[in-house]
Amino acid sequence: MKKTMSVILVVLAAAYALPASAQFAKAEDAIKYRKNALFVMSQHFGRLGAMASGKAPFDPKEAAEDAAAAEFLSKLPWAGFAPGTDKGDTRAKAEIWTEKAKFDDLAAKLQRELGKLTLAAKAGNLDGVKAGVGAAGAVCKACHDDFRAK
Amino acid sequence: MKKTMSVILVVLAAAYALPASAQFAKAEDAIKYRKNALFVMSQHFGRLGAMASGKAPFDPKEAAEDAAAAEFLSKLPWAGFAPGTDKGDTRAKAEIWTEKAKFDDLAAKLQRELGKLTLAAKAGNLDGVKAGVGAAGAVCKACHDDFRAK
Repeated sequence: MKKTMSVILVVLAAAYALPASAQFAKAEDAIKYRKNALFVMSQHFGRLGAMASGKAPFDPKEAAEDAAAAEFLSKLPWAGFAPGTDKGDTRAKAEIWTEKAKFDDLAAKLQRELGKLTLAAKAGNLDGVKAGVGAAGAVCKACHDDFRAK
Repeated sequence: MKKTMSVILVVLAAAYALPASAQFAKAEDAIKYRKNALFVMSQHFGRLGAMASGKAPFDPKEAAEDAAAAEFLSKLPWAGFAPGTDKGDTRAKAEIWTEKAKFDDLAAKLQRELGKLTLAAKAGNLDGVKAGVGAAGAVCKACHDDFRAK
């Protein structure tokens, strides 16, 4: 067991040949990380959208779980927009780095709106969920309009 | 603003033409969801592995954040292993569905081990982090050995 653990640690560590300051081993990992976190978030958010629009029945327990997941995931992608990750399998526009304050504001706003959405969902408040989905969705759209290539 | 929200709700809802019982709109979404959640988890877990093995300096604050993220993410992927998602862009083996109890046990064990790892990281306990990384990593390996194609 001890040997197995050592092997696992060595394998894990092998991916980290870069300086400790680098949060991702490779730029492509950072790109994949942010895209994956955003996709997982979008799946949970999409379910809330379906409930908000009446396409799916409003299930307060499901809504609270989806909102909590979307809120948690909304904290993650931004670390993946590290310097030097503008090229590769990505639609990220250069403006993310040249207008970073604006981008960071939208990222922070999304987290705030999803926090409010989680509170509404936990309270079983469908009107609050509708408002929260609209407000958070508007942030998604604003960011994609300005910072994601078509 | 009201109109923008309506448009957003309609766009979100369009992805949900299936019965409300279907958690994912398409099998490929379920596959992408589980792979993406596992990848994001692996990035956070990998950083803990680097700290546990000494390849990266032990930073208790970072470790606590990475452990909390890995723990949260470890709850998500399993919903993506829905019936009918065994074909497509996936290395998932049929045994996931034919030996479901065993698969579910490993999924639950991973969440428990990452819960312990989070406690150790929050306590700033490097020995606990090393033990937690080893134990959780062993669950990753056991599951991949049995349920993921080479």
